[in-house]
This record gives sequence, C-alpha cells and structure tokens, in this order.
Amino acid sequence: MRVAVVGAGSIGLAVAWRAAQAGAEVVVHDPEPGSGASRVAAGMIAPVTESHYGEAALTPFMAASADAWPAFARELEAASGLPVGFRDIPTVVVGVEDGDRAEVERQTELYRLTAREVETLTGRAVRRTEPLLSHRVRAGVLAAEDRAVDPRAVHDALLAAADRAGVRLEPTAVDDLDAVDADRVVIAAGCGSARFGLPVRPVRGVVLRLRAAPEQPVPRTTVRGYVKGGSVYIVTREHGEVVIGATSDERGFDSTTGTAGAVHDLLRRAIELVPETAEYHLAEVSVGFRPGTPDNLPLIGRLDPRTLAATGHYRNGIALVPATATAVAALLAGGDPGPVAAFAPQRFTEQEET
Amino acid sequence: MRVAVVGAGSIGLAVAWRAAQAGAEVVVHDPEPGSGASRVAAGMIAPVTESHYGEAALTPFMAASADAWPAFARELEAASGLPVGFRDIPTVVVGVEDGDRAEVERQTELYRLTAREVETLTGRAVRRTEPLLSHRVRAGVLAAEDRAVDPRAVHDALLAAADRAGVRLEPTAVDDLDAVDADRVVIAAGCGSARFGLPVRPVRGVVLRLRAAPEQPVPRTTVRGYVKGGSVYIVTREHGEVVIGATSDERGFDSTTGTAGAVHDLLRRAIELVPETAEYHLAEVSVGFRPGTPDNLPLIGRLDPRTLAATGHYRNGIALVPATATAVAALLAGGDPGPVAAFAPQRFTEQEET
Repeated sequence: MRVAVVGAGSIGLAVAWRAAQAGAEVVVHDPEPGSGASRVAAGMIAPVTESHYGEAALTPFMAASADAWPAFARELEAASGLPVGFRDIPTVVVGVEDGDRAEVERQTELYRLTAREVETLTGRAVRRTEPLLSHRVRAGVLAAEDRAVDPRAVHDALLAAADRAGVRLEPTAVDDLDAVDADRVVIAAGCGSARFGLPVRPVRGVVLRLRAAPEQPVPRTTVRGYVKGGSVYIVTREHGEVVIGATSDERGFDSTTGTAGAVHDLLRRAIELVPETAEYHLAEVSVGFRPGTPDNLPLIGRLDPRTLAATGHYRNGIALVPATATAVAALLAGGDPGPVAAFAPQRFTEQEET
Repeated sequence: MRVAVVGAGSIGLAVAWRAAQAGAEVVVHDPEPGSGASRVAAGMIAPVTESHYGEAALTPFMAASADAWPAFARELEAASGLPVGFRDIPTVVVGVEDGDRAEVERQTELYRLTAREVETLTGRAVRRTEPLLSHRVRAGVLAAEDRAVDPRAVHDALLAAADRAGVRLEPTAVDDLDAVDADRVVIAAGCGSARFGLPVRPVRGVVLRLRAAPEQPVPRTTVRGYVKGGSVYIVTREHGEVVIGATSDERGFDSTTGTAGAVHDLLRRAIELVPETAEYHLAEVSVGFRPGTPDNLPLIGRLDPRTLAATGHYRNGIALVPATATAVAALLAGGDPGPVAAFAPQRFTEQEET
C-alpha cells in the first residue's frame, strides 16, 4: 500500500513512521517540516492537568497516549539514535492569591475525573516537592504522572526514525489531494488542514524558552499555576532549558501583534510562582498556532475510503502523538483504532445535516 | 599626520571622520565594528533628562553636544548619503504612583540646573502632549529639547562617511598600542579600553526593540518615567520601531544571566506608562555594556604626547558623539578642545598619587 501523509509535523511523521513499520510505502509531503506547532509546543504529557471543561471525550485517549509515551519514547530513541528528552518528573499546580487558589480547587475537581493520581498538598508539602516555588504559594496539587518530553527533540527523532524506516520526504506543498499519487492519504497538516475543508483554525500561543546557567537552580517539577486570573506553565528540561507558556488568542496567523504584552504576562506569572525564573536568560520567544477545532477535540478518522484525517490536536498534539499514530496505523490496516469515535472528522458536517 | 583610532563604535568613527576631514591619514582598528554599545543604545540626546546627581561637570559638554546634533546629523546624512533618524520630538517624564511622582519632582530640580527648557505639566496637559500615556499618569515634566536619533542608522552613516572621507578600516584587534604604526593613537574602544589600563568597566543594560504595525498608534514623544521605583524610557522612531530601555547592573560581560527578569521589568514599566506598548511586537532583546568610569564622566584627553582617550561615555555615548569628535579633532590639531577639562583620562591616577 502506498500512503501519502500531508504534513511533517510530529503527528504526520509519527503516522508515517508507524505506517512504514507496517509495511506501507510512505511519502510525507511538507515544504517546511516542523514549521508548525510541533517545534513551538512545550511538550507536556498531561492527561490530568490538561483536563478542560467540555473535553471529557478526550480523557480516555489522553490517558492511552500518556501511558504509551514511555515505551514510545524508548522505541523512538532506539529507532532514531536520538534522545527525545522524556522526563519522568511530576507536575504541581499552584495558585498564589485567593482567587487563584480557588481556581486550582475548581481544576482539581476536573483532575479527579480522570481517575489518575491527584494529590492535594499543603503549602509546606508543595514547596518541599518544588523548592523553587515562591513562599507565597500556600497550597497546591500534585499530578505525579503528568510528565514532559522535548518536542523539538521528538521532531528531530521522528524525522530520523521515519527516514530510517524508508519514509520519503517530499518537500512540496499539497493543495489538491486528488493529485497525490497514493492509495491512502492522511491529512496531518495542523492549521494547514483548513485548506482541505477541515474545520481547523489557528489559536495563537506565545511560548518562551529560557536558559539557566549550569550553576543556577532549576525547578525539579513541571510547575503550573494561576496568577491573578491568568495561567502559566513552566517546563524544565535537562541541560537548563526552561519553557514558559502559553498565551492563547485568536488573530488568524498574525505572529507579531501583541507579543510584547504576551511576553510580559508570561514572565510576570512565571516570576510570581518561581521567582528564580527572573534570573535566567530569555533565549527565545516563539509564536505558534494550535490547530483548534469547533469542540476542541481532534479530527482523527476516515473522510472517505481513500482519505484520513489526523489533525486538529489543539493544545495536545505532542501528548497525543503515540495514540494518534497507533489509531491511524490501525485505520490504514483496517483494524480497530481505539477510543477515537468522538473524533470523527465529519462530526460537524453530519450534525448540520441532521 | 597618521592617526590610528582603536574602536569602530560611533565615538571612534566620528573621531576618525573628523580627523580625516582635517587632513589626517586615518586607520580605524576594530575586528567587529559596532559590536559594542553603539548599536544597543536607544539614542536619546537628552541633556535635561539625562542629568544625574554628581555629574554636574557633564552639563556644559552635554549641552554643547546636544546643540551640535541637528547640524551634525545633517552633515553626516549629506556626507554618507544615509538617514540617521534624528527626530525633533520632545521628551515627557512621568510617574504614576505617589512615590514615582515624588521622584519626578526630585529629578525636575536637577533638570532645572541645566538652565534648559523644562516645563511642569498637569495630568491633562501631559496627556494632551502624549495621548498614549496611561490615564493613571496625573502629572509630568516636558523637556522640549531632549531629542533622539537612531544609533544604528548613525553607526551605519558614520561607517559610510568615514569611508568616503578616506578612513581605512582595519579589521584586527589592537592589544599593544606601541605596535600601532601611527603618529597619534586615539583609544575609543568603549568597554574594551580597559585593556589599555583605562578605568572603564562594563555596566550592563538590556534594551528592547518593539515594532508597531502601521495601523497601530505610537507615542509622539519620548516617554520617560518611574514605575514603582524603577525607571524606563520609550523612544519611538519613524517606521514603527519603539525602543524600551534600559536596565542597569554590573555582572562583568555576562550577557545572559537575568535577562528574563530584565525583559519583564522593562515591559511592565512601559506598559504601565503607555498601555499600547503591550500591543506591539517584541522584535529584539539586546544586551549592551556601557563603558562606565569611577565618576561616571567620560575619559577625553591626552594620555601621553602620542596617545589620546575618547572613551568611557557610560550612558551618553550617542549624545556625546558630536562634541567628543570636535574635542578630539581639536586635541589632534593642537587646538582648544572645549569644556573637557573634567574628563582628563588620568584624573584618577593623579588623585591617588597626591
């Protein structure tokens, strides 16, 4: 079977890699691999703390993907010969002011619906877990199984693993799926999927990459929190990279307007929670576009006998890489794709026709 | 006469240009022209609002240089064929909270010592002068003659004008002045002047360059102010560049530690004074090193019959370009250098020997 994948982000490459492993002849089309959300993302694998109201249909898929990540990371590292920066460190969620701590409590109710490990901690206990937290943090929640990976390392490794598995990268854009010479076509073009009629829109996010000097202390957990009504996360990698994210707004593909305010807001919140972040180097400001859908759930499934969608992953693209690749590989092979019924890509069209 | 200038920052190039105009054969030595403070500076020409306690000896020299700038800019543009972005727009100085407005009042007393135009304004009047000021600004000071120039454009123009005047650029570093084949040597190496035994130390500053889209409103004055005890300035250029500066700390030549906190502080203060700045694009974070001296005054004058200093300009290098070039040209020609007696480069050594 000849499979064409449109989009060489992490979803597209993982799908291509899995399809090639299953024996398909795979071509990935992308004029600029990794130019989408894959290399902006912070890389949290957070089935608990990425729970959001109205997105309960995502819970089992997020759980399956998070549980698949450790083995997926090992397999990808072995296949590519490259590290992917998977870190088995927990996540704490904290608030400083009363309103923020109330927000943490509301979120905790959601977290518990995942039936995964969630522990409420006193201020002293949360600061023992994460000594760099501000002394103003007086309570928190520990999500021991919310982990993180380095999305740029993952993307590099997927490029290498796909290449080693025989996947061919075709550096051209696809605008007409009918013109693609393949038995199956998988649309994995993130925000670019809109040009194939899929209901995907760009949700802008600004992400900062800070760098700690070797002698500077860095967080030993992923820190998430609420500061004066705004949210922030701080993801620390090995070798001193500290990622702070993320704003969320919708201005089409505008990657410049308002980034000054976004950088300010992210730094302010991060410094309030972890004052040490002020001492790091602001190494990079990146602007990405999450592929959002009308119900915030991804588009995974068959569009017609030849065409599949694997896109619209919104905030959770990196977390959902393993489960999405497995589901699409199953669909290509005619097998059971797992818990993706809620993600049928034509669900919006069909509802309108009812 | 053969003149060697060590350092191709704006001071060194202006000195070289003037010396070549006076008939000297000039070589400027710099492995990386413009790699110092010249291209980080915001470019304020602010004899009033750059007044600082204990620096009264600078007042007449700053005044002379500021008054020389308009003609210098015209001459430099004509000689180079390049624009230098000189803008004849006023400066307002404002505070928001009580303590900050008290600081503005204290500064205003200093400003008045310059005997230049200084006008205290009501909140309404200052917001009429600068409509983008926050409604929280309730009083301010107008320095109608504090202007600004684009330091990168100035540096480009000086490179071109010096070249057209026959100055030769030698892209190598000078470590041993005795090895330089010239009748006169001018040390204009900014922070790099320390290697010749001059008492210059790096005072770090972080400066942000924001970009406003064509449809976004931008300040029509230079805005300076105090916010919760910290200072900030906002310098707007033609074509939508908005420069926000500057922090000040001393960590040697460390250009990374703490830049995250510096960016946060500058953005916070700028947004408090001019909320619209949050809507711009953060295009660049640059870190520079002001060449500071023990008394914050420059080092301009003769070190020995062959060697002159034109360095240590601390915060005021760009503002002092015309007057410094004129003074050094006069010294090279054996004439009167003007009001530079307080800047004798050996003043610290001599005091110790007394």
